[in-house]
Amino acid sequence: MENKKLWAKDSANLKYLEIIEKFTVGNDKDFDVLLAQYDILGTKAHCKMLKKIGFLTEKENDSIQKELDEMNVLAKQNQLLINSGVEDIHSQIEFNLTEKLGDAGKKIHTGRSRNDQVLLAIKLFLTAEIKSIAKLSKSLFERLMMLSETHKSVLMPGYTHFQIGMPSSFGLWFSAFAESLSEDLEVLAAALSVVQKNPLGSGAGFGSSFPLDRDFTTKELNLEKMNVNSVYAQMTRGKSEKITAMAMSTLASTLGKLAYDICMFSNQNYGFIGFPTELTTGSSIMPHKKNPDVFELIRAKSARIQSLPNELTLLTNNLPSGYHRDFQLTKEIIFPGIQELKDCLEIFEFMLQHIEVKNDILKDEKYDYLFSVEKINELVMNGASFREAYREVGNAIENGTYHYRNDDLKHTHKGSIGNLCLEEITLNFEEVFRKFN
Amino acid sequence: MENKKLWAKDSANLKYLEIIEKFTVGNDKDFDVLLAQYDILGTKAHCKMLKKIGFLTEKENDSIQKELDEMNVLAKQNQLLINSGVEDIHSQIEFNLTEKLGDAGKKIHTGRSRNDQVLLAIKLFLTAEIKSIAKLSKSLFERLMMLSETHKSVLMPGYTHFQIGMPSSFGLWFSAFAESLSEDLEVLAAALSVVQKNPLGSGAGFGSSFPLDRDFTTKELNLEKMNVNSVYAQMTRGKSEKITAMAMSTLASTLGKLAYDICMFSNQNYGFIGFPTELTTGSSIMPHKKNPDVFELIRAKSARIQSLPNELTLLTNNLPSGYHRDFQLTKEIIFPGIQELKDCLEIFEFMLQHIEVKNDILKDEKYDYLFSVEKINELVMNGASFREAYREVGNAIENGTYHYRNDDLKHTHKGSIGNLCLEEITLNFEEVFRKFN
Amino acid sequence: MENKKLWAKDSANLKYLEIIEKFTVGNDKDFDVLLAQYDILGTKAHCKMLKKIGFLTEKENDSIQKELDEMNVLAKQNQLLINSGVEDIHSQIEFNLTEKLGDAGKKIHTGRSRNDQVLLAIKLFLTAEIKSIAKLSKSLFERLMMLSETHKSVLMPGYTHFQIGMPSSFGLWFSAFAESLSEDLEVLAAALSVVQKNPLGSGAGFGSSFPLDRDFTTKELNLEKMNVNSVYAQMTRGKSEKITAMAMSTLASTLGKLAYDICMFSNQNYGFIGFPTELTTGSSIMPHKKNPDVFELIRAKSARIQSLPNELTLLTNNLPSGYHRDFQLTKEIIFPGIQELKDCLEIFEFMLQHIEVKNDILKDEKYDYLFSVEKINELVMNGASFREAYREVGNAIENGTYHYRNDDLKHTHKGSIGNLCLEEITLNFEEVFRKFN
Amino acid sequence: MENKKLWAKDSANLKYLEIIEKFTVGNDKDFDVLLAQYDILGTKAHCKMLKKIGFLTEKENDSIQKELDEMNVLAKQNQLLINSGVEDIHSQIEFNLTEKLGDAGKKIHTGRSRNDQVLLAIKLFLTAEIKSIAKLSKSLFERLMMLSETHKSVLMPGYTHFQIGMPSSFGLWFSAFAESLSEDLEVLAAALSVVQKNPLGSGAGFGSSFPLDRDFTTKELNLEKMNVNSVYAQMTRGKSEKITAMAMSTLASTLGKLAYDICMFSNQNYGFIGFPTELTTGSSIMPHKKNPDVFELIRAKSARIQSLPNELTLLTNNLPSGYHRDFQLTKEIIFPGIQELKDCLEIFEFMLQHIEVKNDILKDEKYDYLFSVEKINELVMNGASFREAYREVGNAIENGTYHYRNDDLKHTHKGSIGNLCLEEITLNFEEVFRKFN
Repeated sequence: MENKKLWAKDSANLKYLEIIEKFTVGNDKDFDVLLAQYDILGTKAHCKMLKKIGFLTEKENDSIQKELDEMNVLAKQNQLLINSGVEDIHSQIEFNLTEKLGDAGKKIHTGRSRNDQVLLAIKLFLTAEIKSIAKLSKSLFERLMMLSETHKSVLMPGYTHFQIGMPSSFGLWFSAFAESLSEDLEVLAAALSVVQKNPLGSGAGFGSSFPLDRDFTTKELNLEKMNVNSVYAQMTRGKSEKITAMAMSTLASTLGKLAYDICMFSNQNYGFIGFPTELTTGSSIMPHKKNPDVFELIRAKSARIQSLPNELTLLTNNLPSGYHRDFQLTKEIIFPGIQELKDCLEIFEFMLQHIEVKNDILKDEKYDYLFSVEKINELVMNGASFREAYREVGNAIENGTYHYRNDDLKHTHKGSIGNLCLEEITLNFEEVFRKFN
Repeated sequence: MENKKLWAKDSANLKYLEIIEKFTVGNDKDFDVLLAQYDILGTKAHCKMLKKIGFLTEKENDSIQKELDEMNVLAKQNQLLINSGVEDIHSQIEFNLTEKLGDAGKKIHTGRSRNDQVLLAIKLFLTAEIKSIAKLSKSLFERLMMLSETHKSVLMPGYTHFQIGMPSSFGLWFSAFAESLSEDLEVLAAALSVVQKNPLGSGAGFGSSFPLDRDFTTKELNLEKMNVNSVYAQMTRGKSEKITAMAMSTLASTLGKLAYDICMFSNQNYGFIGFPTELTTGSSIMPHKKNPDVFELIRAKSARIQSLPNELTLLTNNLPSGYHRDFQLTKEIIFPGIQELKDCLEIFEFMLQHIEVKNDILKDEKYDYLFSVEKINELVMNGASFREAYREVGNAIENGTYHYRNDDLKHTHKGSIGNLCLEEITLNFEEVFRKFN
Repeated sequence: MENKKLWAKDSANLKYLEIIEKFTVGNDKDFDVLLAQYDILGTKAHCKMLKKIGFLTEKENDSIQKELDEMNVLAKQNQLLINSGVEDIHSQIEFNLTEKLGDAGKKIHTGRSRNDQVLLAIKLFLTAEIKSIAKLSKSLFERLMMLSETHKSVLMPGYTHFQIGMPSSFGLWFSAFAESLSEDLEVLAAALSVVQKNPLGSGAGFGSSFPLDRDFTTKELNLEKMNVNSVYAQMTRGKSEKITAMAMSTLASTLGKLAYDICMFSNQNYGFIGFPTELTTGSSIMPHKKNPDVFELIRAKSARIQSLPNELTLLTNNLPSGYHRDFQLTKEIIFPGIQELKDCLEIFEFMLQHIEVKNDILKDEKYDYLFSVEKINELVMNGASFREAYREVGNAIENGTYHYRNDDLKHTHKGSIGNLCLEEITLNFEEVFRKFN
Repeated sequence: MENKKLWAKDSANLKYLEIIEKFTVGNDKDFDVLLAQYDILGTKAHCKMLKKIGFLTEKENDSIQKELDEMNVLAKQNQLLINSGVEDIHSQIEFNLTEKLGDAGKKIHTGRSRNDQVLLAIKLFLTAEIKSIAKLSKSLFERLMMLSETHKSVLMPGYTHFQIGMPSSFGLWFSAFAESLSEDLEVLAAALSVVQKNPLGSGAGFGSSFPLDRDFTTKELNLEKMNVNSVYAQMTRGKSEKITAMAMSTLASTLGKLAYDICMFSNQNYGFIGFPTELTTGSSIMPHKKNPDVFELIRAKSARIQSLPNELTLLTNNLPSGYHRDFQLTKEIIFPGIQELKDCLEIFEFMLQHIEVKNDILKDEKYDYLFSVEKINELVMNGASFREAYREVGNAIENGTYHYRNDDLKHTHKGSIGNLCLEEITLNFEEVFRKFN
């Protein structure tokens, strides 16, 4: 190796250290603050275990638990800050303990690596956030179901290929998105089951020669399972975030689609729905504009959330097993995304409280064609085969002789205009939602 | 509108029709062949239901069922072909029936749209393929567990940041990827639960005025649940494929990572593993090369599979509710991906049958540092605090006085070198695997 | 290494070879056929150079050139096939030569590796395809400009936020997309400049000890530059495809947006444009449907094309320098994408030949608001400040007293309804287009 | 519409406004601060034009120019802040002017929309940042070229398929990445040519009825061209950011690959290079670790940057023409990415100042195989055909009789170990770099 002597310890090094630290730490501390309470939870469990296997005395552990509980008051308010010069929240917590308790503090890292420590904190954080997302989804689900019930008899055109198709209803439209949320939670529940496992004890990915009791910490953390294999436990870094992001992406897709419908249906060429002026925004040059900015931004933020799994894949793909510093960036990818998703769920429910639905949409004559299938079905009921009836009505339309309306639609099967099955949809939702308790 | 008269029906139109059909159908028929057997399953259930609600006579239904069963023999071998001039497999099957049975054939589309028909076929196809992927994952899981057991006492270096870290073992390394497959199946099981629901009866997304019995078809198709709301049922097009692709992507990520490790560990700078010459490939100019092409291609195909969710998101995002022809392309995106994933799982298991593991890797002196944490732990066991012991060993390394090896590692905690917990990992796998029965 | 003796050469090996070959070759041969003519071009240049530096006699080279020219007749029709048992098109061509010419054929790989050989063929292929895409873009550009000129005085509403905004025109709308193509070609030209460089002579990425004359082959191939550094030359594999895909993605984005507009503007709620029935498609249950399937599929295929850069990034990212077999898959990613893009450009131009434009869109009273900015501007012309005029018109709208229309719009600035600057747009296009000659 | 009376103007509305504003503005103001100086530039040009066409008096314009110049002093230091209650930087600047100058301030928005105003500011910002990225790339290029020259005679193994291949050198390796930067700038130059056009005067996408002089503002802004068509000008929102992101992604790919090589080559199994301890980071449990965190993070940040084009595509795809609020989020996607890229370029150049290169790598006997192609070439020089020589050496390797080394490599062709052509690479770079002046 060349150049070695250049690096004798002198004043120049400090400047280098600063450059390196600025680049490597980046804005990581902002995200660490969110992890503080979960790091404390993990450290409490680890120390109780160390006491059990004889690496901490009862007295040492008692004072550690007490100090951690006190720190946790601040941590839960995202107020446990990282001092300048301290690398991360995990070091800060250890430093605080050592400062207060001396030697006992220096012992807490026994049998633990920053790798399994951070991994645990992230997994506990994701567990809490996934549950919080599920709860917000429930509120939105309930709002949509309520709107479906309220507007169940208001008809609207149903479109396929952007073309007028068959009669639909606001009852059908609102509860469709409610049922969508229900399936989204099935994916979210899978993410939860992957995330809420205990990696503590896997060290830097290769375990420890200390006789750690991993069943004890698992129980102490109120988790049902652990990531058993130490090498695998470390592999869940990046993977846990990615699977969570996939589930978020599924939910975001539902939000984005409803937001798109709302933007389109509230334009003047459709005019199916509206919102109070206070909830729309104006233009700097067109005084008549009432833009649906909130929904445009929900759509846009949903698109960003849907980009997260791919971003995490790009970050983590083609890396061999074992921890790499690259994984640090999973936090800055997924943490803001979680906040965005929660914001979107919340404001969506708020906005829908104020949605205004137009009652007489179908009376415009351009919607006559909506009933062409009804006409066919009438012919079938009177004995024609489906294909013959289809041809007859098609010819009438082609010749301009088609005129038909049916204001007394009788759709009776499950999931149709006349039989929304809201109870069944609710029961399905509740079955899934129980997985988050 | 201008230009209208240009379009009187004359010979020119045929050429146009051809251009349009070539572009719109594309290579869609190749994928339709794979759907034939599932379309037949769906049509059989639909016709039984039509008989139940009185739209087909018992005799009509009987002859339809018989014809469909006969067609299914070919369909299951992917031999039910689409004649030229026929748009898709669904039209082909209806056409075959009408040709054989006359009027009865023309009735089968009663109360059904091509939208719910295709959707059902795709969902039944995905259901079968997901189960097939799960089965192949099980074979690979078992191979990895067997290898872990066989090589449980062979040590290897554990790396973090690409740097030599701590002692690991082939027992740990192989079973890590087995455990990974186990969690991947949790995500795949969520995809299965989303996919295996009955959309039949939702028509073009707005139901039907016929008194369809959707509970009947659900039961007839051996499905536990239906997509209740008709508008939502149609929304599952694209969404089902995307969620399946996410689960596939999770599995592919595990395969890609193991393939990467294998490529790296079989290079001469590591030299941890090898494969028989017959299973490697050579170079056009370098006669000494034994390239791990199979694993490079598994890695590459895994990368492609991981791109599928994003591709499906790009295809389907920012489309309002209702069917759009865009959804046709989901088939050409995900169908080949499923085949690739199955191929990768299969050949991976085959290749691992022949992996050769080197026994004495750690004796090279560059691996001395692997034991630095052991040395620290020894000091801790003798009364030092962790932080003090860390500093002492660190100074020894800095001063070049560090020499330590420990050929008698005693790692006892769960998931460590000395306690692989293979039974627990197997039990966890079996618990998840039951969801695919 | 364990297990070695299992691999004594016996009959079992053949079965293994088959499995390996099936997996590693995959459908690669389909794409190789497209490369045949470019491989021949490259081989011709390489052999001429070998003659120049004395590794082939004049006679050997003459007969090689003659044989290659003959093969090229088939190759240009994509009819030069790969025999079963032959690995790829490059081996096939060498094999053909050796069969015909004996020893001379065996010499052609002197100073060349399959790596630089394939790379060159791909770069020559991409060069030709990029030029072909540029040409098709030109036809579409010209069609759009013609339509802009034809319909320059037909007004349509301009939307922002999906809300009625200000008056626009078909002249503006058509030529907007023409100008878009012009900028897309700027990106495509950059791809061309990256792609059309000579990598031949870089071998497997580390050059050769033969005294190759790379300037000679560069000139012989009609290329202006070479990839100088041999290690870098090999790095352009994957990179060339990715940059080409980015440029294709830029074009696809323009096509997708216009296709989206067309789908929307031809629905009954807008009704701005239409297409002859023959160019639309119907529904299996709704006889009135005239679906814009061609444009939905252009939009969908454009989305797929836009996914290509990301797929290539996923494939190639996080691989250290040097060739990896992973790169083989770039062909199956980008080659079909190129064909799709060319198909989309072609059918788009065809469809636009038949677009029907509605003349009196704005007479519907819902479009009154389009003129609110005109009203403000009138007030400004009469002395009000912009902000005061804005408030006055806004209040009138709020109070329901706003009524204003201006059938005599006088937009005079460059790029406005009244001053489309079609010549300037054409000049800009031609300036860019010259880069493809 | 239902519910209307709920929205009588009362105190409740204020709360709503807050919710809406919090969600819609988000963290947009942070990015707006970066745009301030460019908005001022644009406003200065717009006002000079308004004076020219008679909408501002000379005196009004003079005082506006003076105020804007004063604001610009703060703006250039990113110190021109947005007051709470003010929506964005554009409103803030107009507000400041109106406060100081009264009526003159109210006139500046004449003939302009926030759409073209913001678009212009973004384009001017991107123009400046692209040039700044080019400059940083040049520093890195020069560092790499210097290292190539310094270490031109130090050999290293060349790998393909992760397997030892042929001899390479540090001269080749360093300058390969330099040449890569050169081609990356070709793509960046295309982005520059797309970005640096004048959209001012396109209003909200449909121009204006004022007689704006767009040639005047184009010249005033020192731009060569304008986005002519007003509808197209608005379409460049999102597109400009995406094309810039593609070019950034191309550069990031080069950085990521070099960073990967460095991480791998500095591990103990390779041991080709090293960095002073001060520039590496340690482990919380393994005292011997010297982790290359800076390069891991460059690799990771490069992966994130490479995800940007896809994220922007997801955001903007499938939106019809016309402005949508979704575009607001382009700023929060690309602005931080630009900063990350600049940081990576800067620290990369810094780190490479201190890279330590090992001189005697090849003496390890495992590198013997590197010379197998040399041996073949020797045989060819002595009269064998390439294929025969290949077979002979291959057999020797198979039989374990291969022994060959050649310490006196004579690679003479362009781009090989013995002929790096550094001047040609530099000339090519300079040719591209001139496009950024």
